[in-house]
Amino acid sequence: MKSAAAKYDAGAQVGGKGWLCLHRNENLFIDPDWEIEFTAKALHQVSISSYPDPTCQELRGAIARFYKVTPDNIFVGNGSDEVLSNLFALLRSSFDHVGILDICFKMYPVLAERFGYQIQILPGDTFHTGKIAVNNWVGLAVIDSPNAITGTQFNIEHIWSPAKDDRSFLIWDNAYGEFSSETLPGNISKNVVIVKTFSKFYGLAGIRIGYCIADRVIIDALLERKDAFNVNGMAQLMALEALRRRDVFHSLSREMLECRREMASRLQGLKFQIRKSSSNFILVMHSTCQAEVIQNELSKHRIAVRWFQGSLTENHLRITVPPMSGVERLTDALSEILENV
Amino acid sequence: MKSAAAKYDAGAQVGGKGWLCLHRNENLFIDPDWEIEFTAKALHQVSISSYPDPTCQELRGAIARFYKVTPDNIFVGNGSDEVLSNLFALLRSSFDHVGILDICFKMYPVLAERFGYQIQILPGDTFHTGKIAVNNWVGLAVIDSPNAITGTQFNIEHIWSPAKDDRSFLIWDNAYGEFSSETLPGNISKNVVIVKTFSKFYGLAGIRIGYCIADRVIIDALLERKDAFNVNGMAQLMALEALRRRDVFHSLSREMLECRREMASRLQGLKFQIRKSSSNFILVMHSTCQAEVIQNELSKHRIAVRWFQGSLTENHLRITVPPMSGVERLTDALSEILENV
Repeated sequence: MKSAAAKYDAGAQVGGKGWLCLHRNENLFIDPDWEIEFTAKALHQVSISSYPDPTCQELRGAIARFYKVTPDNIFVGNGSDEVLSNLFALLRSSFDHVGILDICFKMYPVLAERFGYQIQILPGDTFHTGKIAVNNWVGLAVIDSPNAITGTQFNIEHIWSPAKDDRSFLIWDNAYGEFSSETLPGNISKNVVIVKTFSKFYGLAGIRIGYCIADRVIIDALLERKDAFNVNGMAQLMALEALRRRDVFHSLSREMLECRREMASRLQGLKFQIRKSSSNFILVMHSTCQAEVIQNELSKHRIAVRWFQGSLTENHLRITVPPMSGVERLTDALSEILENV
Repeated sequence: MKSAAAKYDAGAQVGGKGWLCLHRNENLFIDPDWEIEFTAKALHQVSISSYPDPTCQELRGAIARFYKVTPDNIFVGNGSDEVLSNLFALLRSSFDHVGILDICFKMYPVLAERFGYQIQILPGDTFHTGKIAVNNWVGLAVIDSPNAITGTQFNIEHIWSPAKDDRSFLIWDNAYGEFSSETLPGNISKNVVIVKTFSKFYGLAGIRIGYCIADRVIIDALLERKDAFNVNGMAQLMALEALRRRDVFHSLSREMLECRREMASRLQGLKFQIRKSSSNFILVMHSTCQAEVIQNELSKHRIAVRWFQGSLTENHLRITVPPMSGVERLTDALSEILENV
């Protein structure tokens, strides 16, 4: 059997007692007791021994109502992982190249290799300029905005520009969208898919619910392509309940924004350069100390952050925003580390 | 976007109050209160807002200990759906044909079409003879034993025969294996994958856990191919707990066997021909009444059974074995229906 694909690096599998995990952009503001109450409610409403609804009709209906589209415009998958993977698989019959940003979610190159796409870097030098400059692009483009590594929210006109040409196709990965000031366009385009997740704003990373909004022709193709029972039955119910409790998540998100401000300010005080973020994490670079060294030292304090290798991000760390106690623990540890290196 | 694949028919999505669902081979012996206690235990042990272990290490370890292999021989997927789908995808670089039984799990032809395989029917006329007669087979073969439609448990030597040639590859789908008298071979072959699930014997169809046992080269390729976080975190824990409580499921399985005997005997009394089953369902054919008519009439009684179209199974119904009260409800309804047609 030929090994057909590169492997995605999901980040170190640390955790358990005492670890502060700032390396996977999880929603760290969810109260553990609230989680238990939330989950307990679901378990009285669903039988784990029955197959789940294979097409997630109720959940698709609720998501559709929220976005003022129809359920035929919504596909739900086992995390946005499955949504993206099936989109890459399906679009391969129409495209042999995929355009991605110079710095983007590390899964895209993995999926490109898995499905035999040539990769093109979209123009704009986005890492340095913060701008996409895609004009007259013809082809398949995948754009994560807010960006999964930098947190940059790109200009909506620029994001949309690859879709202007009918021969092109845009996958807009909006996983972190709820943390940004962006509102999604109300109309459905034939050549645009917007990919979303319950893992970030809704804090349900553990139970794997992603979805996308698109023209029904695309949704039908995804429904045909997917595995038979692709989405866990409890997870379907919990995502429905999360939508109902949207206000809770908005309030957690406001708290996160305050902590992000405080964290950025303290990190600047420790001589980190801070990149403006529209998400629940910050990409930072220290003025003198190597990112790899800081990552390793932090792990001795049982704090996990994410260092991305590669020429552009080489000396950067991505740090998820925790609640204030976590901000204090992080910055105390960093003070100690930076004094001693 | 080209629609690339045929769609699997997962069976009617019925259910809710009053329905007796005998059409999906779920484990109907799980007590609802037990389910709630079982799930409640898991939710105190895992955070739903944290990403799950991407490679299911603890669960793979527990499964490996059970089969006396190493964790490197185990892959865990989002239901056996994902395991099968990724196997079909990976093996496509080595094979352009896939051999399947004349009557088999309806997902195989769907996967064959999705990944561009030509289908060959394995010799043996298995539906009528109950025997696989694969000698000197060279190629990829997928065999479900016990069979997903008929419940037939094939001779282990015959199942294994496609793997005798090094150029061949066998996927043995053993989803219903725990209900049969089969014990799995202890050794790992380079060209055999045994696919298993927690959906049947362990009654966890709703939470999607499947796995396979194979040579580590195959497992490594599956790990590279899979989506990043493919298995729900709560589901990983619940599968672990199910393994610990194996005795409970054995006892439910013994109860099912008694009900299967009683159900077969009553159906024979109602002039059904019964096919010998090594699983938690029976395939039956009435001596005079059409399967489609019976299916439709039963649904008026809120009882779902499964009629498979197609030349061989045309007049057959597949009926999952319920607890004794369900057997009574089914056979009472059938008596009434058969009196009136």
